[in-house]
Amino acid sequence: MIILMKPDYSEKDLENVCEFLARKGLNYHISKGTERTIVGIIGDKKVLEGYPVELLPGVEKAVPIVEPYKLVNRSFKPQPTVVDVDGVKIGGDDIVLIAGPCAVESREQLMITARAVKDAGARMLRGGVFKPRTSPYSFQGLQWEGLEYMVEAREELGLKIVTEVVNTQDVERVAEKVDMLQIGARNMQNFQLLREVGKSGKPVLLKRGLASTIEEWLNAAEYIMAEGNPNVVLCERGIRTFETYTRNTLDLSAVPVIKSKSHLPIIVDPSHGTGRRDLIKPMAMAAIAAGADGLIIEVHPDPKSALSDGPQSLKPDEFDDLVKSISKIAEVLGRRISL
Amino acid sequence: MIILMKPDYSEKDLENVCEFLARKGLNYHISKGTERTIVGIIGDKKVLEGYPVELLPGVEKAVPIVEPYKLVNRSFKPQPTVVDVDGVKIGGDDIVLIAGPCAVESREQLMITARAVKDAGARMLRGGVFKPRTSPYSFQGLQWEGLEYMVEAREELGLKIVTEVVNTQDVERVAEKVDMLQIGARNMQNFQLLREVGKSGKPVLLKRGLASTIEEWLNAAEYIMAEGNPNVVLCERGIRTFETYTRNTLDLSAVPVIKSKSHLPIIVDPSHGTGRRDLIKPMAMAAIAAGADGLIIEVHPDPKSALSDGPQSLKPDEFDDLVKSISKIAEVLGRRISL
Amino acid sequence: MIILMKPDYSEKDLENVCEFLARKGLNYHISKGTERTIVGIIGDKKVLEGYPVELLPGVEKAVPIVEPYKLVNRSFKPQPTVVDVDGVKIGGDDIVLIAGPCAVESREQLMITARAVKDAGARMLRGGVFKPRTSPYSFQGLQWEGLEYMVEAREELGLKIVTEVVNTQDVERVAEKVDMLQIGARNMQNFQLLREVGKSGKPVLLKRGLASTIEEWLNAAEYIMAEGNPNVVLCERGIRTFETYTRNTLDLSAVPVIKSKSHLPIIVDPSHGTGRRDLIKPMAMAAIAAGADGLIIEVHPDPKSALSDGPQSLKPDEFDDLVKSISKIAEVLGRRISL
Amino acid sequence: MIILMKPDYSEKDLENVCEFLARKGLNYHISKGTERTIVGIIGDKKVLEGYPVELLPGVEKAVPIVEPYKLVNRSFKPQPTVVDVDGVKIGGDDIVLIAGPCAVESREQLMITARAVKDAGARMLRGGVFKPRTSPYSFQGLQWEGLEYMVEAREELGLKIVTEVVNTQDVERVAEKVDMLQIGARNMQNFQLLREVGKSGKPVLLKRGLASTIEEWLNAAEYIMAEGNPNVVLCERGIRTFETYTRNTLDLSAVPVIKSKSHLPIIVDPSHGTGRRDLIKPMAMAAIAAGADGLIIEVHPDPKSALSDGPQSLKPDEFDDLVKSISKIAEVLGRRISL
Repeated sequence: MIILMKPDYSEKDLENVCEFLARKGLNYHISKGTERTIVGIIGDKKVLEGYPVELLPGVEKAVPIVEPYKLVNRSFKPQPTVVDVDGVKIGGDDIVLIAGPCAVESREQLMITARAVKDAGARMLRGGVFKPRTSPYSFQGLQWEGLEYMVEAREELGLKIVTEVVNTQDVERVAEKVDMLQIGARNMQNFQLLREVGKSGKPVLLKRGLASTIEEWLNAAEYIMAEGNPNVVLCERGIRTFETYTRNTLDLSAVPVIKSKSHLPIIVDPSHGTGRRDLIKPMAMAAIAAGADGLIIEVHPDPKSALSDGPQSLKPDEFDDLVKSISKIAEVLGRRISL
Repeated sequence: MIILMKPDYSEKDLENVCEFLARKGLNYHISKGTERTIVGIIGDKKVLEGYPVELLPGVEKAVPIVEPYKLVNRSFKPQPTVVDVDGVKIGGDDIVLIAGPCAVESREQLMITARAVKDAGARMLRGGVFKPRTSPYSFQGLQWEGLEYMVEAREELGLKIVTEVVNTQDVERVAEKVDMLQIGARNMQNFQLLREVGKSGKPVLLKRGLASTIEEWLNAAEYIMAEGNPNVVLCERGIRTFETYTRNTLDLSAVPVIKSKSHLPIIVDPSHGTGRRDLIKPMAMAAIAAGADGLIIEVHPDPKSALSDGPQSLKPDEFDDLVKSISKIAEVLGRRISL
Repeated sequence: MIILMKPDYSEKDLENVCEFLARKGLNYHISKGTERTIVGIIGDKKVLEGYPVELLPGVEKAVPIVEPYKLVNRSFKPQPTVVDVDGVKIGGDDIVLIAGPCAVESREQLMITARAVKDAGARMLRGGVFKPRTSPYSFQGLQWEGLEYMVEAREELGLKIVTEVVNTQDVERVAEKVDMLQIGARNMQNFQLLREVGKSGKPVLLKRGLASTIEEWLNAAEYIMAEGNPNVVLCERGIRTFETYTRNTLDLSAVPVIKSKSHLPIIVDPSHGTGRRDLIKPMAMAAIAAGADGLIIEVHPDPKSALSDGPQSLKPDEFDDLVKSISKIAEVLGRRISL
Repeated sequence: MIILMKPDYSEKDLENVCEFLARKGLNYHISKGTERTIVGIIGDKKVLEGYPVELLPGVEKAVPIVEPYKLVNRSFKPQPTVVDVDGVKIGGDDIVLIAGPCAVESREQLMITARAVKDAGARMLRGGVFKPRTSPYSFQGLQWEGLEYMVEAREELGLKIVTEVVNTQDVERVAEKVDMLQIGARNMQNFQLLREVGKSGKPVLLKRGLASTIEEWLNAAEYIMAEGNPNVVLCERGIRTFETYTRNTLDLSAVPVIKSKSHLPIIVDPSHGTGRRDLIKPMAMAAIAAGADGLIIEVHPDPKSALSDGPQSLKPDEFDDLVKSISKIAEVLGRRISL
């Protein structure tokens, strides 16, 4: 941490700062410049956490220089992590496709979709059964009944299944059924839920919050890893900006940024990221070109009767077409669709 | 809802839309203009919820025209709601001041602060005991021990107490102890938690999410009211924007907007809204001038040793000074500090 | 400036950095910590401007610690500046009200409005004659003809006049006619225009850009002052955020921030800042409570027939009512409306 | 346009609205629903422009349903436009690469860079000679001297040249020298400048403003086309968001959006869009995968001594490597690098 003194600080202020640091067991260097004086802190800065050094008299600001997250940090583990979802490996050479309906609406709808996405090349099935919705009057999901349909789909088709969990009490019970737990964007900083999925040991798909910085996102992953669960896959799904034409602004630069800051795999959700069916294919191709380890895409056998997020769902044949295009992009990068 | 047809729609598309609406039991009017054709839907549009009309062939977009929230809507209840927190009335002529430390750190720290804020004019004591923190390694609060200190402070000083609740399992137990439950910004769309505090029947202080629109915020309040709990007080606490000088951008225009869209009271949090001690007083004055029903302000007996959010806490004498200034602004508006 | 070395930097990298600094004539201190090594630069850092120190091998980042603006900086001139607009003083004890139509539409419309705002307490008349509009097909203003009407209004009523200038070629000619030149939000970083109004020596009203940080805004003011023109008044007029209910998000915390960073006066534009007539009065009151030195407000004799920005214009009697309320808030702060 | 009446409108209000529309020569349909009444306007809505219908008594809001831009609109010209920059065609099957230094610093620096980018596959040379800089104390470019170096580079190497123009007075003189004029992000709504480059008839590279919506951007292009200049190429270069890790947030979804709304070509600037050298290659690949017609990339022979934007410049060999990767992505899309 660097402490910048105010232009008009007194010698007593500086002594006071030094004494404070010494009391905390920290070494420091003082640099007196022609314009400003700074104090560089040496030693384990963690002892300073929670201490608002900025309030000491004569101090203008304190600039942290080291990231707060450790376990997810690439400097602590340079090799990329490959998360194994019951045999499906995310983060290696293979590109993993996760597809399925936004919400599970019926056994029939799910099975039709599941078969279609499997045929097209998806190895994992997504399907929301506990739906967080902005309005209490919107469809909230089929709940446990829907989860059973997901389990049936896995048994019949061999697809691994992932679903969002929203209630801490449900984590254990859902974890017993699915191969991967999803934390939705709205819950990215629901720290209790993060800890619970951390404890479960199950692979976790951690979506980026609507207004979360990359640093906050990595800190959220740190909550999960700090509980002893290293199986975290990050998912960029668009951030909230002033642009209203798209539902969100898909921040694809997050892909190479995460690759440089963390060893965790990252996939992209172009369905929520754009909110418009005609943008999904170009953005899916772009995501793979940017280095993403996979995609999660909404597919619905009949988007115009979907109970949630129909405008951003692909029809099965559109998904099939998308997979073919993705496959060619993957090849350029020396990767391939995991089949 | 208004349906706008594409420039190149066919008559068959239009028939198809009309048939779809008729099947749903809805009446409609068709307006064919020189440039575009629109279909205006008449009747209970709720039957359309979840149906992505935009995916019907020939449809360009569907424009909703009525707010999705009902119970919090001023058009359904024109009279302002006054929330009664065990005798402290929020939303009436009196301005209510809630003050206290960001986090409860010790019995002594809390009691000193509580006495000081009471003397200055606060009628309610705030104090975080379950702290949602970005990093798992930051101080997370004194938990239940801290809650007991809050209860002691109420018993000794007669201040009503409010604290944030973050875990659904804790709601009932915390509700037994406190006078008002706070939902923090990060949990504004933790719908399970909203439902739980709704069921508790306790007054709820609902903070606006960092990146939440006013409509999403009112929908969150609707979740609470839909459980039969009308005692909701909204709290503007700053939104996330590109400006980094302040911690957040305090959106004071939300105050008159909420007043026009809803009957619920609204207070302002200039401490989190700015993140800088020197901005709290001017923004507190501005909030009252804009029509806020109260303020929630962080006060710490010794901000420079605070374990969380010290840079944005006032010292007791600064709070006292702030109350005096607020009081004069309130008078101009025909209101007064509730004492 | 602080240079943070990468975790894996080599001694050669460090030597290289030091040699580079020495070559530039700069002194420095090296602090080797247990986690990181930093180099603090001492001396006139201006010699480093434009040199991307971050690209030197082994360097992770360079953190600037001193603001780039000088002349507008409060640390260089602690006393507040009072800008004298031909006798109307902005930045002193008096609150200055500037009012008038968004666009000058006719002699009659302007004169009716000018008389009304003068009667209500405005000392300056605003009126757009060169209008920057998003679409080339929208009304672009009466141009020079409109300017003549402004001049007539001044002559007849004694109000000082301010109008936006958008073309560099026009600056000199407009400056001869008006008392104050306005730089609009869209032109805040039209540096050529800033230099021209700087050269004119006329008082300048510098609106904040839609997506400009406070630092960029102060740098824009620096462009004007660097040409030898100290008569700059800043104007907060709302920033662009994700919230769409209001046209912009009025960032009132900018008022006390500017007061602490700069000696220049600052006024607020609640008309553009909210875009909604019913929000103007509460936000005007809030602006004064936050410490603004004045207001600029759109008034139109018949808003529903206004050619631009009608929805955000007050009627003359509404403006009159606003002035009365503002006046009482001003009094609380020991200020008064300049009459 | 759709007019939504307030819940409590009177019959007289409705009559008044209808009379107003009739007076303007417009037909309309009234739809009375159980919840709301709407008026759909038929006919040439342009006659309503500038009339704030929302201010008529009883009216809640007016919803525009047709885009304001015409000439740039794909519905008015479905075939994609190919802009011919003296033989280099942008918007066809070929991917066009524009590369060069952020700022021209010397004849030598420019020539070295120009040769390197030509060898790597660029067909156009970029180089800033008039630099808009946030601070008046930063390097502002070599001005006319730099322009001559650009001209020399073209003559020697056959590269077409593009440079930013910032002053309206300079447009004609610069247009005589270069093959394409660039409008920078800060000047996207400098309407006078847009009109001038429109009049010049030269191909224009129109960068998206930092906080500009896609609709505003297309309206800016409309300004140029409305002067009779159809040779406009759009350039996505990142928007301003809350994320600070990257300099801007590159909004790649703008690429397919522009393709669907407009017939104009669009290229991407990953250098400004990310501000970080290590992100340029992955984002360039993503841009091409998303459907961009070209790239504009900063290359500097010695980034660490660059006078502006060094941290985001590629070295020549890095650019060469990027072109090879881009080439393979282009092939997947049935396109190729224009050589």
